[in-house]
Amino acid sequence: MDYIELIGFTAAFLTTAAFLPQVYKTWKTKDVTALSLPMLLLFFIGIVGWLVYGFLKNSPSMIFANSITVVSSFFLVYFKIKYTKK
Amino acid sequence: MDYIELIGFTAAFLTTAAFLPQVYKTWKTKDVTALSLPMLLLFFIGIVGWLVYGFLKNSPSMIFANSITVVSSFFLVYFKIKYTKK
Repeated sequence: MDYIELIGFTAAFLTTAAFLPQVYKTWKTKDVTALSLPMLLLFFIGIVGWLVYGFLKNSPSMIFANSITVVSSFFLVYFKIKYTKK
Repeated sequence: MDYIELIGFTAAFLTTAAFLPQVYKTWKTKDVTALSLPMLLLFFIGIVGWLVYGFLKNSPSMIFANSITVVSSFFLVYFKIKYTKK
């Protein structure tokens, strides 16, 4: 692994680690009032775009980071829809 | 601009657009209780890493997206420190 990917994986680890507690907190508290569904959907579609971009640029660290984030942001969308009071 | 960068810029626009309202909301409400300083710092350092990675990979869309996010996440760190009740 070259030093460029080492920087990429460090960045991937940090940004993913900073995002996961939000997912965990939402799952535990079921409090989705602070989350906006349109923003979550924009973010989710954007992450799918970054994942595709990572494949096209042959970037292992982007593929790694965005694979995790695409799953975790999908959970946020799901929680938002499931836990929003009718 | 090739189609790979078109996908990258679309992703950049979506994820940046989804992040900015959080910064704006924090600035207006001065409510930083839901934000965690260690997580914000991890995220900020991670974004700096992605920015460096974008330069090394010659990725205009990553440089664009992470330049905006490095500034906006810096503001979140600043707001968290400034508005946390002593």
